[in-house]
Amino acid sequence: MTKQGCGMDLMQVVKQLERFAPTTLAEKWDNVGLLIEPAKDKVVQKILLTNDLTEPVMSEAVDKKVDLIISYHPPIFKPLTRITMGHWKERVVASCLVNNIALYSPHTAWDKIPGGVNDWLAQAVDIEDIKPLIPEPGAEPDTGSGRLVKTNMPLAKIVSALQEHIENDVHMACANGHNSNFNVKTVGICAGSGGSVLQGVPADLVITGEMSHHEVLDFNHNGTTVLLCNHSNSERGFLRQFQGQFVDRLKGACSVMISEMDTDPLTTKQRAN
Amino acid sequence: MTKQGCGMDLMQVVKQLERFAPTTLAEKWDNVGLLIEPAKDKVVQKILLTNDLTEPVMSEAVDKKVDLIISYHPPIFKPLTRITMGHWKERVVASCLVNNIALYSPHTAWDKIPGGVNDWLAQAVDIEDIKPLIPEPGAEPDTGSGRLVKTNMPLAKIVSALQEHIENDVHMACANGHNSNFNVKTVGICAGSGGSVLQGVPADLVITGEMSHHEVLDFNHNGTTVLLCNHSNSERGFLRQFQGQFVDRLKGACSVMISEMDTDPLTTKQRAN
Amino acid sequence: MTKQGCGMDLMQVVKQLERFAPTTLAEKWDNVGLLIEPAKDKVVQKILLTNDLTEPVMSEAVDKKVDLIISYHPPIFKPLTRITMGHWKERVVASCLVNNIALYSPHTAWDKIPGGVNDWLAQAVDIEDIKPLIPEPGAEPDTGSGRLVKTNMPLAKIVSALQEHIENDVHMACANGHNSNFNVKTVGICAGSGGSVLQGVPADLVITGEMSHHEVLDFNHNGTTVLLCNHSNSERGFLRQFQGQFVDRLKGACSVMISEMDTDPLTTKQRAN
Amino acid sequence: MTKQGCGMDLMQVVKQLERFAPTTLAEKWDNVGLLIEPAKDKVVQKILLTNDLTEPVMSEAVDKKVDLIISYHPPIFKPLTRITMGHWKERVVASCLVNNIALYSPHTAWDKIPGGVNDWLAQAVDIEDIKPLIPEPGAEPDTGSGRLVKTNMPLAKIVSALQEHIENDVHMACANGHNSNFNVKTVGICAGSGGSVLQGVPADLVITGEMSHHEVLDFNHNGTTVLLCNHSNSERGFLRQFQGQFVDRLKGACSVMISEMDTDPLTTKQRAN
Amino acid sequence: MTKQGCGMDLMQVVKQLERFAPTTLAEKWDNVGLLIEPAKDKVVQKILLTNDLTEPVMSEAVDKKVDLIISYHPPIFKPLTRITMGHWKERVVASCLVNNIALYSPHTAWDKIPGGVNDWLAQAVDIEDIKPLIPEPGAEPDTGSGRLVKTNMPLAKIVSALQEHIENDVHMACANGHNSNFNVKTVGICAGSGGSVLQGVPADLVITGEMSHHEVLDFNHNGTTVLLCNHSNSERGFLRQFQGQFVDRLKGACSVMISEMDTDPLTTKQRAN
Amino acid sequence: MTKQGCGMDLMQVVKQLERFAPTTLAEKWDNVGLLIEPAKDKVVQKILLTNDLTEPVMSEAVDKKVDLIISYHPPIFKPLTRITMGHWKERVVASCLVNNIALYSPHTAWDKIPGGVNDWLAQAVDIEDIKPLIPEPGAEPDTGSGRLVKTNMPLAKIVSALQEHIENDVHMACANGHNSNFNVKTVGICAGSGGSVLQGVPADLVITGEMSHHEVLDFNHNGTTVLLCNHSNSERGFLRQFQGQFVDRLKGACSVMISEMDTDPLTTKQRAN
Repeated sequence: MTKQGCGMDLMQVVKQLERFAPTTLAEKWDNVGLLIEPAKDKVVQKILLTNDLTEPVMSEAVDKKVDLIISYHPPIFKPLTRITMGHWKERVVASCLVNNIALYSPHTAWDKIPGGVNDWLAQAVDIEDIKPLIPEPGAEPDTGSGRLVKTNMPLAKIVSALQEHIENDVHMACANGHNSNFNVKTVGICAGSGGSVLQGVPADLVITGEMSHHEVLDFNHNGTTVLLCNHSNSERGFLRQFQGQFVDRLKGACSVMISEMDTDPLTTKQRAN
Repeated sequence: MTKQGCGMDLMQVVKQLERFAPTTLAEKWDNVGLLIEPAKDKVVQKILLTNDLTEPVMSEAVDKKVDLIISYHPPIFKPLTRITMGHWKERVVASCLVNNIALYSPHTAWDKIPGGVNDWLAQAVDIEDIKPLIPEPGAEPDTGSGRLVKTNMPLAKIVSALQEHIENDVHMACANGHNSNFNVKTVGICAGSGGSVLQGVPADLVITGEMSHHEVLDFNHNGTTVLLCNHSNSERGFLRQFQGQFVDRLKGACSVMISEMDTDPLTTKQRAN
Repeated sequence: MTKQGCGMDLMQVVKQLERFAPTTLAEKWDNVGLLIEPAKDKVVQKILLTNDLTEPVMSEAVDKKVDLIISYHPPIFKPLTRITMGHWKERVVASCLVNNIALYSPHTAWDKIPGGVNDWLAQAVDIEDIKPLIPEPGAEPDTGSGRLVKTNMPLAKIVSALQEHIENDVHMACANGHNSNFNVKTVGICAGSGGSVLQGVPADLVITGEMSHHEVLDFNHNGTTVLLCNHSNSERGFLRQFQGQFVDRLKGACSVMISEMDTDPLTTKQRAN
Repeated sequence: MTKQGCGMDLMQVVKQLERFAPTTLAEKWDNVGLLIEPAKDKVVQKILLTNDLTEPVMSEAVDKKVDLIISYHPPIFKPLTRITMGHWKERVVASCLVNNIALYSPHTAWDKIPGGVNDWLAQAVDIEDIKPLIPEPGAEPDTGSGRLVKTNMPLAKIVSALQEHIENDVHMACANGHNSNFNVKTVGICAGSGGSVLQGVPADLVITGEMSHHEVLDFNHNGTTVLLCNHSNSERGFLRQFQGQFVDRLKGACSVMISEMDTDPLTTKQRAN
Repeated sequence: MTKQGCGMDLMQVVKQLERFAPTTLAEKWDNVGLLIEPAKDKVVQKILLTNDLTEPVMSEAVDKKVDLIISYHPPIFKPLTRITMGHWKERVVASCLVNNIALYSPHTAWDKIPGGVNDWLAQAVDIEDIKPLIPEPGAEPDTGSGRLVKTNMPLAKIVSALQEHIENDVHMACANGHNSNFNVKTVGICAGSGGSVLQGVPADLVITGEMSHHEVLDFNHNGTTVLLCNHSNSERGFLRQFQGQFVDRLKGACSVMISEMDTDPLTTKQRAN
Repeated sequence: MTKQGCGMDLMQVVKQLERFAPTTLAEKWDNVGLLIEPAKDKVVQKILLTNDLTEPVMSEAVDKKVDLIISYHPPIFKPLTRITMGHWKERVVASCLVNNIALYSPHTAWDKIPGGVNDWLAQAVDIEDIKPLIPEPGAEPDTGSGRLVKTNMPLAKIVSALQEHIENDVHMACANGHNSNFNVKTVGICAGSGGSVLQGVPADLVITGEMSHHEVLDFNHNGTTVLLCNHSNSERGFLRQFQGQFVDRLKGACSVMISEMDTDPLTTKQRAN
């Protein structure tokens, strides 16, 4: 039996993370799993969850003496040819190693699993039916990239429900012919930057984090309204859901905190009228 | 002498557009110049200016019986293998031809010229000095991609000046250590999607239209605050400046209108508190 | 019941063309199907068949007020970045749109079907057996690229039969060891430019439209005589066969004409002796 | 002093060939120069000239006991991974080596020199002025690919002059608007397969060996009539001119013969009327 | 019945070589099989076996008037664009043809077969179990690249056994923690240059011909000692085994000799102490 | 004035290393310079020189509490996507960071400078003249890849001189026609793996660290004898020369040691006779 708060071997924690979402699900271009292992036989007592491992979050981790950071986005993406004080991602990597902190990133593995990031984002709308946009070949049911949701809600109601779900502003681009009374029947969902996963989806509405101007115009001309949350605001709320589930998986052996410094970098400054 | 409003041969109008901004300045990947010539010896009386040639703008052009559309963004970007009613860009091309409307796009040629789109966007700040970020080899002085501006303004003042200049909201991501009192000395400017042109620019602040989440984090960690206007809001205001100049160039032979339907697709829906 | 000559909706005509030869059969590099759709709900009364949509054929189509051109070769092959009066293919595209004429090209789909262009060309020889050179995977029997024919005719007799079938001159390159009395047992057939489809075919004779000098030498040294028809002369005669079949498919709703201006560009000028 | 017919060291003959046309002029993709050197210190008494080294020509070379074959086209073009009796080009290579015959190919070096293959082909028309289409950078004047000729002859007269010059039939594709009375002022010349070298040349007429159907249609629509000689008939006549010049260069040390078996593989079989 | 020493048609000898080891087994990048066939209907009485067809070996073949050389390494690897006296591989090819000697190379086909080069090299150790490292898909059992051997010998004993097996020196790089008493349980085997085939093999020891410095360091740090034989010394001894087997296959129709000139180019010069 | 042994700021040490050999000289594919900077404002008292940063050398560095390792070969070559305990190069990187040790690699910059690694290796022979094989464009004289040396020594004498210079065995492959009495006039030099830099060099002898079997055969057939030192034995001796020079440059501020654990992994085990 695991004793409360007494810690767990890092490799055991990684095994639980793999059970929650196998990293074999991640995209070929992605860089996921245990990215930094600072020493052999590392024991983990404190875990910090974050969406982005920025330098303020890194400082928080050091201050709180955590043993493991689970960062949804992988801090090492472009492979490293050196580790110096001259680039923030190299500073973060060095700080992990010097402070004996392990680092794990799940990214697209969490996007694809049932009950993962995309399913969390979809909770913003009333769900009559939901399925992956790109089902994962050979995986268990309901696994895959993006989600297609059947619903029955006026656009205006979805906008306010989404604002509450992500606890933030949203940006909207109405399809030609739509207005706030338009009754939405189908919604494409993709957390993060959804332009390519959502491309060509036959839906009244798509909800994602960010999308380029020319992609937005394409959706609008194909009869699809676009709602943008800002990239990390479409993902971050999932951490609270994960926190509860993971504490249970670890049977209380580790404490699991959510970063207080992690936040989307962008805020909208409204023009005064 | 050109008679008022009596029109001008299309090829003469194109010649004036080339004098204003030579299309040889455009990027290699761009598709600029006269994109649709519906018939030989076309005479132009009415010209419509737009940032994006969306279908509402196309309808406006037909209704107003214009002869030439000048669309900043090229409506043909991915080359066409067919022209059918099944895709909005093909419908726009067909509508131009069927309605005998010519189409011209300047895009990156207008970005690079002195007095062009980037210089217009830079007017949002007090300019002590300004020069291109990437000077154009072999071109006349002050020509090139992006702009680097020396100024001396608190960040908060720049935000409100930019809101007034583009007549719209802006989105801000503060560099680690900056706040609204931070006194900005250097500003990188790039209309549209400025992530790659602005990359690595040593500036306190960058102003552009749109930028991805991961690019924003990189700028912030390098000590650079980011202001985003939305893509087309960083460009559209230049049309008014061009309108006046071009009427003069044509010596009144053509009337030059700005589209009433052209607008950025995105608007921010603030969360009620 | 369809009324004689009263026309048929364009999409219904396209559906009949797809039934005759599914465009999914076409090669990956090809550009086939409905290439120009000038307006929604276009009704087709007159159809013009041509091998190549040259400008003289385009003028004929306008003069005859046809609604749909079926051009065996696709007039749009290299994708278009603009549509101006400066290039003949762009002029043809503009003329279709301005004159409200639809355009459909079947190309390699017609080559592959049983009863298509290659089977028509093979009729020049006495056929004891015939099968595709490259059978189409997953398609119905007798479908594929090129044909391999078993026959039993002296070479001289095939030459004159081919001249009658295509109603034109032919060009011959005799294999080392062959002469006009050589009894041909196997013939490789490929309408158009057959060098790559016919490469390595174990046949006494190959018949195609055109072939490069170095390809001809290779065939001759491998024991294969070559007969060339000129590119379009190896294809054009099929239009008469198609005409009859397609009138029946449309149940007389549209009139179907063959172009009078369409002809191979090359003619041989014999040296006077 | 060189004694008549007593032969010359192979390397000396190669040196004279290089002086006539430096192989450094050849295209990057070409394979020119001494391709087969069967033994050290080879002495050359008999030289055979041919356009293509076919197997009948190879037999002739063996029968005539020649020491060196100069083949305009390189018999080794696709590099060899083996030399067996199963492929004609490998048989030709083996036959050279076994019969102690050297092989030299000049190809595009002869095309480019002043007084070379293209200048020979141009002699079919009255020349008022002549210059290379693509001048060779850094080479002596009048060197380069293709030729542009100024002349003043009716099309019909050029056709018959060309027939006499190449002593063979020609194939003609008239530009839209041209006929046999059309007075030709400018002619593009390219021996062999001229489609890419001649592309876009502003000429009333182009003369080459072979050209694809789609290339011919492009020239005709750009106002350019096309005359085709068959590939090798546009080149072979140059051998007679070279023969005389080269005997002089060698000061009679070697006998220089033209192949009696070398001929274009294609002949036109006219349809009986 | 085949008469002793009376010779055999070349194609029959090749058929026996293919039965011994099908060239379809060879790697895609390899160039194997009958590389030189000097004439039709060549009869083979004398066969010379060699590992590398160097010029001393070629001279030996000419002196001994052999009809066929079987060279394990293909003398033609980079395809040939010419055959002159200026490059040693071209001289070897010319010498084969001029002296009417055929050439066959098996290379990676011999590596993969059961009882081939790798199995021969593996005989240096006591074999408890042996299987291919990369089994050949679709081939008979025990076929494939490299070998993984189970054994039970101290390292020092393997070193001396290998010296005796190849009759030459060996070069050793001890894994971190290994010494001459280390008891080896698993051995990866790859004749020739084994760096990529052996990469990542979980073995106490690898035996190959040559390996780069950086590859050696990788093996040593992964707990694997490296033994190098020099490239051809890891292959040459197999020729004796093949010699006996092939004489039997040919039923004595041809004499089969091993080259006396073939040897590894490198010898170690020990520093005097 | 710098105080003896009191240390120097890491960035000052790096500046001295750059003065000794600018990293801008390194090859494009190389990864040189300061590869690990464990903290800001790092002060360096002890420096360890090594050819390869193996794990035994890393342990030595930790034991000796060095502040900076200068490793001729860059330990990070293939860029890193993670840093774990599962791969030796990642363990070395982690160990540097955790133990607060900086890492610098010069590699090909040291090869190219006058007085660098190649000039050191060349000292094994009597030098009458020496120059780079591939002079560095735009660099000061005597800079570049490889060296070409004029000398006048019998081969046997060079062998023993090289053994003394590198203090180790050498491996020799004699050119066809050479023997130990051959008088060497020209020597190509390239430390490390010299196959491509030395390719085609017109020399009686080449000296390098390692070379593949097929490269050795090519050199021998072109009349060039090959002497191999083993990769790192052709480089390591330079460290002693550098040590003295660098202590002077640093004016004694740091102590500079040579690793006692760094050694070539391979040793030759001679076969007992």
